[in-house]
This record gives sequence, structure tokens and C-alpha cells, in this order.
Amino acid sequence: MTRSPAETAQLALLLEVSATPKPGNVDRERDLSGLRYDHFLAGAVGSREGLELAGEGAPVGSAFERAVAGMGCQEGGNTQFGSLLLLVPLVRAASGREVTPAGVREVVEGTTVEDAAGFYRAFDHTDVRVGEPPEGMEPLDVRRGSEAVPAVEERGLTLLEVMAASVPGDDVAREWTEGFERSFRAAGVIGGTEGTPSERAAAAFLSALADRPDTLVATKHGERVAEEVRERAAELDERSALDTEPEAVEAFADDLVSRGVNPGTTADLVCAGLFVALERGELVV
Amino acid sequence: MTRSPAETAQLALLLEVSATPKPGNVDRERDLSGLRYDHFLAGAVGSREGLELAGEGAPVGSAFERAVAGMGCQEGGNTQFGSLLLLVPLVRAASGREVTPAGVREVVEGTTVEDAAGFYRAFDHTDVRVGEPPEGMEPLDVRRGSEAVPAVEERGLTLLEVMAASVPGDDVAREWTEGFERSFRAAGVIGGTEGTPSERAAAAFLSALADRPDTLVATKHGERVAEEVRERAAELDERSALDTEPEAVEAFADDLVSRGVNPGTTADLVCAGLFVALERGELVV
Repeated sequence: MTRSPAETAQLALLLEVSATPKPGNVDRERDLSGLRYDHFLAGAVGSREGLELAGEGAPVGSAFERAVAGMGCQEGGNTQFGSLLLLVPLVRAASGREVTPAGVREVVEGTTVEDAAGFYRAFDHTDVRVGEPPEGMEPLDVRRGSEAVPAVEERGLTLLEVMAASVPGDDVAREWTEGFERSFRAAGVIGGTEGTPSERAAAAFLSALADRPDTLVATKHGERVAEEVRERAAELDERSALDTEPEAVEAFADDLVSRGVNPGTTADLVCAGLFVALERGELVV
Repeated sequence: MTRSPAETAQLALLLEVSATPKPGNVDRERDLSGLRYDHFLAGAVGSREGLELAGEGAPVGSAFERAVAGMGCQEGGNTQFGSLLLLVPLVRAASGREVTPAGVREVVEGTTVEDAAGFYRAFDHTDVRVGEPPEGMEPLDVRRGSEAVPAVEERGLTLLEVMAASVPGDDVAREWTEGFERSFRAAGVIGGTEGTPSERAAAAFLSALADRPDTLVATKHGERVAEEVRERAAELDERSALDTEPEAVEAFADDLVSRGVNPGTTADLVCAGLFVALERGELVV
């Protein structure tokens, strides 16, 4: 027996949250206030059915909505919305073939207005932290959830077009428009690193955090804080601090947690990277 | 949306392995040689489909075989065979009604020869550490896996009868013949303890370990070691050591791990207890 893409995606969710240290985020050693490690375990459990739908070829929007509704069946609030927004098209792209940038690009380019409606409906199931909509986009504010669906339909926007409108400012949406570039890059780091899955995912996290300012941090704390976090991650990443100075990374992690600065977008990218690395056999569990 | 019994069972598997400290066993802070925390996460992922079958009313034996086959899709070997042997009938008993000792007794009493055959076939999918069969039972040695099925069928043994023949010496089998007494007791400890799910499951683990010698420890290291472990757990449990002396429990955990003494049967009981506590709303995640 081999693992199905939906099973691999669920395992990626579990390995992502378990990886430690992952500065600023929940991991197996760190809870945030009101958002605990076990909420993420339950979020991964609840996500499974939506991921199965994606694996069976259901439309991306409805599979995503189902995954988010299931994820929301726990007391911690939003745990893995962004991760699922990457995993659902990746699972579709991995079904019956090898997962590639071209394959997932084909999936997102095939999304429809109905997929966009499913995406908006997903916001009814959990509270997601997002920025203000761009000028003139108020009717399409995702925080309106299913109430915005008529406006989406009227304008005939596909889910890929909705994602494109969220760039810049949301690096999960950016993956949709850039062929999942950073997800595949994270998979490369995971595949090219030694150690346990936790150590390899933690290395990919630090590398991705060093690469671009985390957009969730920018939304919650401003661009300046996001850039400061990126610079500190870059210093540590350059010194391969996970090998040479694990305490420095642990201290960075504790500092971000105590300031409530959680780079959740970077965690989403690592989750997508774990999925790709597992699917390709570059990470074996 | 609410969690289905199969989802609850998968969550119980994840919460059980995550609970720390759980002296001698893999937890979120301790790997054993060749058997890591992430193998248990993957085991929980692979178990899900068999648990779903149980929730849909499939025969216990085939649901169990499917769960074990999926659990075995990882590199660590046997991770949760015993837990699944408790969870599968519990999920059946929880489908569409409240889970009770009477309900699960009805499920196990309804098992057939075909269920027994499924149980034997499950041994083809993973290596399970079990003791020598009793005198005259060699043809029914579970280690023969599916090869023993003709002997099982010839003697017309139901799965409950197979379980009854494994008592004493296997306290997972004993649950089948004793109305899941210790599983429900563990649920009571979990429900009656304060703290995070990890802390509550760790308290239930220490309590169950103090209660009876772990039968996996007895099989691997002899009765004397199992009794020594029980006595040390009882001392710590009596002092409510998780509250008053966490370091003493951590030291006990490290000692057992270094000696390769892992009370896996006790972990299985705690997993079943987590399932019952979650189903009854005595533990909320």
C-alpha cells in the first residue's frame, strides 16, 4: 500500500506543526495564547475529508470549503487556512501523476467562478486574519464570506483571479500566481537537508523566513516588523544556526512567541513544501 | 459540524502519542531507536480509512485489517496495532449513539469467525511483538498471520473467542472480555483532571501504569520488570507526581526509554480512554 495524495497532505499538516523550532509559531514545544498544538492536530483531522475530495477530482473551491469547515471543528480558531489553500490544488495536481509546478499551474488556471464562490464560503467557517481590501474591492472583501458571493459572480471572477487580486500582501495567494515557486523551493530545502523530518522542516522554515518578509506578520504588525524578522532569520540562516547555534534559534523562537509575532504564511509554505517532498520521495516517513 | 467517531479516533491516536511525559513510550519529546514520533503521526494518518469503515458499520475484522494495513504505511514498523484493536470496536459502538460499556460489549459479542480471520490477516501488514501461544494453540499463533486463517475457520472461533484465549498476558485482549473497563476508567481520569490534553493524558497514563503491570513490558522483559515499573508508577501516581514533582516523572521516563522498556499496552488503554473522553465531551479540543 502507498499513501494517497490526501493522506500525504494530512501528514504534511502534522509534520509542519510538529517541526521545532519554528520561530514565532505553534510547534510541538510551544503553544500560543488560546491556540495550542492540539488545536492544530484536530485541525489536521478535520481537514482530511476536504483533502480527499480534492484527491477524487472535486472542484478546488468546494474541496477547499469542505477542508476549512472540517479544520474549524476545534476550539482554537483558524489553524491551517493558508496551508489548505496551497494543499488543495497540490493534491489535485498530484492525483494520478507526479506533482510538478506545471501540473499545479494547470489546476489553478482551470479554476472557475464557482471555485471562487467556494473560497468565499470557506470564510464563513473560521476567522481568518486578512488585511483591508484594495480600493474599490470592498464588495469583494473576503471577510464578508458567502455574502460576497453575488458580487464575485457578477464580476465573473475565477478563483485564480481572486488570488491575483490579493497579491501583493498575501504570499499564499502569490504562490497561486507564481507556479508555487516557494513551495517547491521549500521542498528542495527539505530534500537537501539531513536529520529528522522536524529538523528538515525547521531548516526550510528558517530559509523561507529569511527569503521574504512574512505577509501575515506584515498584516498584523506592519512591514517594518516583518522586515526585522526576515533580517534576523537571514542572519541565523546564513550561519546555519540550526546546526551551529541551536540555542540562538530557540531564543529567536521564544522572543517572537512572547511578542505574539507568528509568521504563519511561512509555515503555510513549509507545509506545502513538506507535501511536495513527501510526494516526490525526497522525504520518507 | 461535529467530529465523526472515526475522526475522534484519529484525534485520540494523535493526542495519545503527543502526550508527555509518558514514561518509556514515544511522545512529542522522545523518540525510541528506529521508532520516532513522526512514525506515529504517519500511523494515525494511515489508520483513518479503516476507522471510517468501522464508523460506517463495516465488520470489525475487515475494518481492523484495513486500519492496520494503512497504519503500516510508514517506516517505523508497528506503531498503533493495540490502540486500533480497542478503537475499532469503540468507533462501531459510538456510531449514531453514545459510547457505553454495554454498547461496546454488544459489538465485541457480535463478532464472527470472519472477523477473527480479518484480525489474523492484519498481522501480515506489520510486525507485532506477542508472546508464545499457549500449549496446543500453535496452529492459531497470531504470528502466522493469514496462514492461520484455515485453522481459525476450522475451529469456528469468533474474534471475541480469539481475544479471550489471549487473556491473561495481553491486557488489550482483556479489555474485550471485561467490557473495556480500563479504557472507560482512563476516560474518567482524563475527564477528572485539569490541564492541557497532554497533561490530562499523561496523568491517565501514570494512573493506568500504576494499576496493573504492562503486558507488553512483561512479554519483552518479563513479569519482574513489569511489576517493578508498576510499583514505581504507583509511587509517583500516589504523590500526584505530575503536579508536585514533574522532574521525578521526567526522570522515570528517561530511565525507561534508555532501558528500552516501553509500556505500550498502557499507551493503548490511554488512547482508548482519550477516544471515550472526547466522544463524551469530557475532553474538548
